[in-house]
Amino acid sequence: MKHADRTQGLRKAVAIPSVSAQDENRKDVFRMAQFLASELEALGAEVHQRPLGKQPGKEHLDLPPVVIARYGNDKNKRTILVYGHYDVQPALKEDGWATEPFQLTVDSQGRMYGRGSTDDKGPVLGWLNVIEAHRKAGVELPVNLLCCFEGMEEYGSEGLEEFIQAESKSFFKDADAVCISDNYWLGTEKPCLTYGLRGCNYYSVSVTGPAQDLHSGVFGGSSHEPMTDLVHVMSKLVDTHGNILVPGIMDLVEPLTEEEKALYPNISYTMDDLHQSLGSKTSIHPTKERTLMARWRYPSLSLHGIEGAYSAPGAKTVIPAKVIGKFSIRTVPNMESKDVNKLVFDYIKAEFAKLNSKNTLDVWLQHDGKWWVASPKHWNFSAASKAVKQVFGVEPDMTREGGSIPVTLSFEQATGKNVLLLPMGSSTDAAHSINEKLDKRNYIEGVKLLGAYLHYVAEEPMVAA
Amino acid sequence: MKHADRTQGLRKAVAIPSVSAQDENRKDVFRMAQFLASELEALGAEVHQRPLGKQPGKEHLDLPPVVIARYGNDKNKRTILVYGHYDVQPALKEDGWATEPFQLTVDSQGRMYGRGSTDDKGPVLGWLNVIEAHRKAGVELPVNLLCCFEGMEEYGSEGLEEFIQAESKSFFKDADAVCISDNYWLGTEKPCLTYGLRGCNYYSVSVTGPAQDLHSGVFGGSSHEPMTDLVHVMSKLVDTHGNILVPGIMDLVEPLTEEEKALYPNISYTMDDLHQSLGSKTSIHPTKERTLMARWRYPSLSLHGIEGAYSAPGAKTVIPAKVIGKFSIRTVPNMESKDVNKLVFDYIKAEFAKLNSKNTLDVWLQHDGKWWVASPKHWNFSAASKAVKQVFGVEPDMTREGGSIPVTLSFEQATGKNVLLLPMGSSTDAAHSINEKLDKRNYIEGVKLLGAYLHYVAEEPMVAA
Repeated sequence: MKHADRTQGLRKAVAIPSVSAQDENRKDVFRMAQFLASELEALGAEVHQRPLGKQPGKEHLDLPPVVIARYGNDKNKRTILVYGHYDVQPALKEDGWATEPFQLTVDSQGRMYGRGSTDDKGPVLGWLNVIEAHRKAGVELPVNLLCCFEGMEEYGSEGLEEFIQAESKSFFKDADAVCISDNYWLGTEKPCLTYGLRGCNYYSVSVTGPAQDLHSGVFGGSSHEPMTDLVHVMSKLVDTHGNILVPGIMDLVEPLTEEEKALYPNISYTMDDLHQSLGSKTSIHPTKERTLMARWRYPSLSLHGIEGAYSAPGAKTVIPAKVIGKFSIRTVPNMESKDVNKLVFDYIKAEFAKLNSKNTLDVWLQHDGKWWVASPKHWNFSAASKAVKQVFGVEPDMTREGGSIPVTLSFEQATGKNVLLLPMGSSTDAAHSINEKLDKRNYIEGVKLLGAYLHYVAEEPMVAA
Repeated sequence: MKHADRTQGLRKAVAIPSVSAQDENRKDVFRMAQFLASELEALGAEVHQRPLGKQPGKEHLDLPPVVIARYGNDKNKRTILVYGHYDVQPALKEDGWATEPFQLTVDSQGRMYGRGSTDDKGPVLGWLNVIEAHRKAGVELPVNLLCCFEGMEEYGSEGLEEFIQAESKSFFKDADAVCISDNYWLGTEKPCLTYGLRGCNYYSVSVTGPAQDLHSGVFGGSSHEPMTDLVHVMSKLVDTHGNILVPGIMDLVEPLTEEEKALYPNISYTMDDLHQSLGSKTSIHPTKERTLMARWRYPSLSLHGIEGAYSAPGAKTVIPAKVIGKFSIRTVPNMESKDVNKLVFDYIKAEFAKLNSKNTLDVWLQHDGKWWVASPKHWNFSAASKAVKQVFGVEPDMTREGGSIPVTLSFEQATGKNVLLLPMGSSTDAAHSINEKLDKRNYIEGVKLLGAYLHYVAEEPMVAA
């Protein structure tokens, strides 16, 4: 099969502006679901478009369906459940795109530009290409394949968690392992397998005093100012070097073993890579090892901003009556949310008490999402590792990520099976930004990788996960 | 003369919605200028409407004229220059007004509701009433009166300072003293004379690091965060109890003399008054004396907010790339702006250096306005004090204010003469708010006060100011 043929499906998919965040594109999201379902049916799969009901808060809109499919039903084969999403981020040419965002445009370097090319239509079409390639070659797929493609990933995956929970006892019940291709290589040259994600506990801390905003000329110096207290409290949470100052937090962190430590030096990453992504040299740690550990396996605390204070350009001589600080802690094994909350709440209240202010402080959790770590020794990972070696001729980097991909944990918790993140795109793909692209090499070799992965999955010895 | 007659002019003035901030009302502001000019002419004054040119930044609009007038030109009399403004704040019934804002409505308690009633059409019409009363009684005004009524006070007094500078050598050159009636009593019962205002130095302090906002999941823990540094620096500026932590600032403050200290205990003000204005009991100081000193004669530092950080409701996991803290210091004698700036800049840079961050900090002055203190022993004040005693039967409170009224300093600097702030309205008048009002007692007795003040001015011995 020629490369041009392989990109044909992706070209059609990119041309459908399935932007889940914009009401006016909802029909396109449905159109994209239908496109996928038709393609899967044409390949001989059993396909369903499962409705998720009305969109909460926007009841005039139907949520896009989850497209689920089964290809193969052989009891003697392993069953792999793959996840992807067919909706995309918004994109307008005038935002600064060099090409039409909803028209796949390939440049002389083989960079395929288009919204959704790498996030996540490329990987989704990749799975379809694998099936198609096997059919055309007359080769039977070595595993049963279950697909779960959603249409609301870029807008909060509304309704998906409950759906996965329910189908884990039904349509997804045979799954032996899960594979998600919706993240990125650490760099541009070397593939990776991702086995961990940090969680996130997001907090608000409010300080209130006067009944309404005050004029700083009239009242400055005579009244306790909520903003002063809040800034003092927020300054006690984290230092310039990223050290979390909340006592006890670091005691919850799983100690670094020699075995884990040994993974870092081989990872294809440099401090220059970090400085390039930052656009500055404001790195905290001197080495790549310590940097990657800080991002992947240690918690961090970021101060995001303050609600209620003056935030516009210019000058306003206001004493804000109520201010709400926002901060979050990225969590890692073995930090349990409730333990983190208790440490944070107790500490903040104690620090505020020290101020001896007549203002009132409150602190609460806005939301939390748990960290996730899979066993990279599971056959699911071994198979993927061998596939990388076969297709790319290198051992993959074993990576974690600092951010969260909530669906990962949903699948693990619902199915109880090992989940593997097997990315197709590279670190330069600019998902969510202007000029999103997927390199043709990543796509073509990526399709081979997904196919090879399924073959190695079939060959892995039957041992307990 | 009946009271109803006296409020007739005010009723007509309030009916003209001379809102300077709204383009569509500019014609009404001009109409109000014409109304004042006609009234003054009818009283026999020499009147001019002086154009100020186009409005900077809104060149399709003409600035409203300054209405200047002279009443009397007797070389043997003192000449008093009075200032007021004929424009008003915006007002809409639907903002929560109980009555039509541009229709003077008197309730059974004699509260005269209407936009501009107290700020500043009541006092302006008050001066006209004084002239009229003398004419009707056939009594010659004991002083020459110069009027300066502007129409842009509620929108930055565009162009006024230069105008005052120029006219101080021309139309205003005979002025022996200045009287401004555009502030308020400290409470509701006892008149006051105001002899001081705090100044204000407004600062911005920025911290920059990465080239663009970062995802806290991906980069949290590996990069210096500008928000962390800024919050640390801002926390070093002022403590919960209002103490300015910038070393050297308090050394610039004029020491409290026994004489000044003796002014405070008699002032009609209570901690309950403060708590009522705050809508809370979050006062810093235990006594009214210390509270009033904190507002009037000591500097204060307020943290207003942060530009560039996340300020909306909800949650966003952003590491802002550039944040700008806003704070201001209310200044008092003898704090010179440039000395304050040097102390602030040096201290902030030193505190930032201690953090040992790779981010970049900058700090600058956004704007400054000088404090003002007049001699309350000047004949201008003695005359006003005697007038209060005659009309109200009490000694006035000698007050200062924590905020700034820039025109005060403009007149003092341009004319070199003593400036007196002689308020008509009370602390409950709600200038700038919904349901602005002026009590009929304050208006009727206030007109008597302005008249009596001019009489005592004429009687004060001729001594050096």
